[in-house]
Amino acid sequence: MALKARALYDFSSENPGEISVQENEIVTLYSETDIEGWLEGMNARGERGLFPASYVEVLRSDPHSAFNSTGTTDGYPGSRYANVPSVSAYPSLPQQDSFSHTPASGFITFATPSHQVPLQQQQHQQQHSSQVSQGSDDDWDDDWDDNSTVADEPGVVSGGSYPDYDGSGVGRYRVSTRSDASSVSRGSNAQHGAKSSATVSRNLNRFSTFVKSGGEAFILGEAAGFVKDGDKICVVMGQYGPEWQENPYPFTCTIDDPTKQTKFKGMKSYISYKLTPTHTHNPVNRRYKHFDWLYARLVEKFPVISVPHIPEKQATGRFEEDFISKRRRGLIWWMNHMTSHPVLARCDVFQHFLTCSSTDEKSWKLGKRKAEKDEMVGANFFLTISTPANPLDLQDVEAKIDGFKTFTKKMDDGVLQLTNTASEFARKQITGFKKEYQKVGQSFRYLSQAFELDQQMYSGALNHAIAYTGETYDAIGEYFAEQPKQDLDPVMDLLALYQGHLANYPDIIHVQKGALTKVKESKKHVEEGKMELQHAEGINDRCNIISFATLAEIQHFHQIRVRDFKAQMQHFLQQQIAFFQKVTHKLEDALQKYDNV
Amino acid sequence: MALKARALYDFSSENPGEISVQENEIVTLYSETDIEGWLEGMNARGERGLFPASYVEVLRSDPHSAFNSTGTTDGYPGSRYANVPSVSAYPSLPQQDSFSHTPASGFITFATPSHQVPLQQQQHQQQHSSQVSQGSDDDWDDDWDDNSTVADEPGVVSGGSYPDYDGSGVGRYRVSTRSDASSVSRGSNAQHGAKSSATVSRNLNRFSTFVKSGGEAFILGEAAGFVKDGDKICVVMGQYGPEWQENPYPFTCTIDDPTKQTKFKGMKSYISYKLTPTHTHNPVNRRYKHFDWLYARLVEKFPVISVPHIPEKQATGRFEEDFISKRRRGLIWWMNHMTSHPVLARCDVFQHFLTCSSTDEKSWKLGKRKAEKDEMVGANFFLTISTPANPLDLQDVEAKIDGFKTFTKKMDDGVLQLTNTASEFARKQITGFKKEYQKVGQSFRYLSQAFELDQQMYSGALNHAIAYTGETYDAIGEYFAEQPKQDLDPVMDLLALYQGHLANYPDIIHVQKGALTKVKESKKHVEEGKMELQHAEGINDRCNIISFATLAEIQHFHQIRVRDFKAQMQHFLQQQIAFFQKVTHKLEDALQKYDNV
Repeated sequence: MALKARALYDFSSENPGEISVQENEIVTLYSETDIEGWLEGMNARGERGLFPASYVEVLRSDPHSAFNSTGTTDGYPGSRYANVPSVSAYPSLPQQDSFSHTPASGFITFATPSHQVPLQQQQHQQQHSSQVSQGSDDDWDDDWDDNSTVADEPGVVSGGSYPDYDGSGVGRYRVSTRSDASSVSRGSNAQHGAKSSATVSRNLNRFSTFVKSGGEAFILGEAAGFVKDGDKICVVMGQYGPEWQENPYPFTCTIDDPTKQTKFKGMKSYISYKLTPTHTHNPVNRRYKHFDWLYARLVEKFPVISVPHIPEKQATGRFEEDFISKRRRGLIWWMNHMTSHPVLARCDVFQHFLTCSSTDEKSWKLGKRKAEKDEMVGANFFLTISTPANPLDLQDVEAKIDGFKTFTKKMDDGVLQLTNTASEFARKQITGFKKEYQKVGQSFRYLSQAFELDQQMYSGALNHAIAYTGETYDAIGEYFAEQPKQDLDPVMDLLALYQGHLANYPDIIHVQKGALTKVKESKKHVEEGKMELQHAEGINDRCNIISFATLAEIQHFHQIRVRDFKAQMQHFLQQQIAFFQKVTHKLEDALQKYDNV
Repeated sequence: MALKARALYDFSSENPGEISVQENEIVTLYSETDIEGWLEGMNARGERGLFPASYVEVLRSDPHSAFNSTGTTDGYPGSRYANVPSVSAYPSLPQQDSFSHTPASGFITFATPSHQVPLQQQQHQQQHSSQVSQGSDDDWDDDWDDNSTVADEPGVVSGGSYPDYDGSGVGRYRVSTRSDASSVSRGSNAQHGAKSSATVSRNLNRFSTFVKSGGEAFILGEAAGFVKDGDKICVVMGQYGPEWQENPYPFTCTIDDPTKQTKFKGMKSYISYKLTPTHTHNPVNRRYKHFDWLYARLVEKFPVISVPHIPEKQATGRFEEDFISKRRRGLIWWMNHMTSHPVLARCDVFQHFLTCSSTDEKSWKLGKRKAEKDEMVGANFFLTISTPANPLDLQDVEAKIDGFKTFTKKMDDGVLQLTNTASEFARKQITGFKKEYQKVGQSFRYLSQAFELDQQMYSGALNHAIAYTGETYDAIGEYFAEQPKQDLDPVMDLLALYQGHLANYPDIIHVQKGALTKVKESKKHVEEGKMELQHAEGINDRCNIISFATLAEIQHFHQIRVRDFKAQMQHFLQQQIAFFQKVTHKLEDALQKYDNV
């Protein structure tokens, strides 16, 4: 009997080699083993080809194996990406033994219905996710398929990136932020180095960022690892407070030549970018999936660092010029923020990504495995931080963090509003403004055509001048339509990057707040005689480390914010000035035509 | 028993002293005698005051006296100005004896249902119209009331200004041209100097412009009058054909200081303008009604000259600044075309208008009566024209006229389209463009407000600069909204003036065509032995005069057209350049603020 599967959602073939399937359609599988997320088979209409493995459930007797089948009841009815959160948002759940610590009554801040699926099923999810975002045994030519299925996209249907810190559970909907992806991937190493030796109560909420990031484990003294000299990260006191020690070897990296490559005998295609770091001058070729892999590594490694989001995935139009150009601009901004960050710029996995030869498969594989087996991630990351000798005043820290929280909320609103305005303004210039100027141009040309019927030779120069004025207004209409690429698009690129950062900060603040709460709790325990002073002092010291790191990160954020917004506002205004000057010169040119009339 | 009247239309009181009446409302009259078009009385609600005499019919036993009562069945149902055509469009119908020449079967090119009212009623109309537009026994302080009632407005609901020359009767609707007014007023002197001695058949259509203008009477040799040397008008041969002899004493005239004046103890108001001609340097004060009176004189005097239209009357908002400014601009353009015209600029009535002291009532009255009793109008006007010795080739003339007809139609389309486009473009700048730029401004300001919460003193300069950029975009939005006054409004003023001229030309062409037809007819009659050669030659000679005059007028039109459109296009572009430069400078100013960030 041939192996069958049932389609869970509609899938429309978009490339040669793919076949379309409809929800509930029964397909025949040629093999149960997917090729990088794709299955090969035949649909009900007899068409043979590839379709996303995640879009079907294999029909077999074991009901628990069909992990995707919960997708239709996960609270996102009607969405093609309905089960995305359940697949990608929690790729690595806690180990079974630590999971048993979680009482059934524990409230779940990030809960969606699909989190309450049976454990066996969750493990399936974990397994599936590993396949997608880790794939430790792939080699260089392997393909995680950044273009195969949107269901792999983390954060596409992300929910509230601003979870309520007070636990009221009120989130808000944001379009295209990757906050869930980060909060989730952090969770994947939540228990790194964690031991069950706590004397302070654990958070009931096993899904809180504080727990998932490793913040709790570190505060409770459960993190343990050997910190090499090269891994040391220093926070120093600067003019405005704690800051990351500057990178002594600053560099930048260009991203050029997006090139279309093909594989599967041309059946699948992808874009390759040439990266040239200034500290090596050796160009390497990287694909979007490599950025995506790197991003996942960074997010799990650095709990209180705002890792810049890579540009969004996109299901369709991936090979259109506009999209390629936009993604490249997004990657350039991402690279800018990576190389600007004193900690991120220097970390091993990023250096491996930037410097490993594209053709040296063995080195790449080695570096990749090393990064995926890095022990100094999550809770252990905090072990690598060295701080100034004088501890911070906790109340000061709390006030600063609260102030920053207020700031990020307001800035997020401002960025969102400016994004919407800029987007609408661009649209108006491309459509309405262009149309209005070109209608003026057309009317002038029409009048000049009428004037040409005047039988008076001596008005020929006037007719020509008016026709030229008409063409001038046509051209000005085009100028308006082309202008947003020069000024508004770059502004929107910047705003998109900052939307990503602003979506990261709630989690970062959450970790810091969690640490502060543990300090207060431990002080109370000491007063009540439930805890040894020494233990409480340890908690306090570790909280101090988290506070230093958090404030250093906030400081860094402000520095690049002022740098970026200054530069971008200047660029915007310069482009606007150039635009209005161009229009002026065009009009002056038209005016001259009347001199000889 | 008190005298009663029934309201024919709704009238809304707009000034102190006026009372509102509703259609069919019965009002009590204090007197049957109107004061300059206004009656005093009491409406059904007991309010006492003034209302337009033309809006009511006096209730009495004689049914023919209520001439306005046909208004409700004149084919313009529901219009407040329903009976305007029947009142003002044909103020002077042919005398009863000549009217009897018109057979019932004669088609009527300009016919509207109201033309078919009984003769006695038509005479009433004529009488009423004289009251409105001639009033030969008024003195300087008399008031024709340019602001009293819109029903006096000629052309408000004008029909086809482009009647089909081939008699197919297809007209087209034009908004606010005064063509009917001119064709009509010409009609008022249709029979000036006409005798019943024709040997060539008369036109069956007594309403044709050819007849009404006096063209037919002149062609048939019926015009007679003593031409003084001062009345002589010369057509000369210029580089491009026949043209009016230049005015040896060219002058211009400024129109300034529109000032609100009141009368009736403040109950009625009007605007007075100061006119200062350059050949006298003596300012005189004139009201709109004086322009209107002068316009009517010129139209009846000059059959083949395109008298520039005065700005439209307006029912409401007459004292609003925008309207006063717009009317003044319209009057300035009108004056420009009057003084630019070699014939119009020099004619007695215009000189009287420009030079008679505003305070010398006696001189004004004398000049006014003289103008109204001028014999050299209509048919007799052609007697005053002297032409070059060599007659024109009739086929040449016909080709030129046909070409000009095609040209005017196309130009009229072009002018209409540009008017609509300019009007819409102005509206978009005042609303949409302004809004878009100000939304950008607002978003920048909002972002700067968010940035002010950053607790980082060193970004204060950036916040200030972004706020300033926001204000800059607010200002640019205002610039856009204010700009149409500088560039598009003047263009539209010019286009409105030319719409008037283009509405005049069908009539002018019609007169010339009528003359040509008569020549062809007479040649045929001669061949058939029905007419003496000498008589036909006379017709040919007189047609030659009309042709010279028409071509001279066309030539003049092209000259001022090229002059005006060149100047106005230059002005438009200069203003647009100034605008974009202003925006550029404003942006450069904003850019500078980032230098110190």
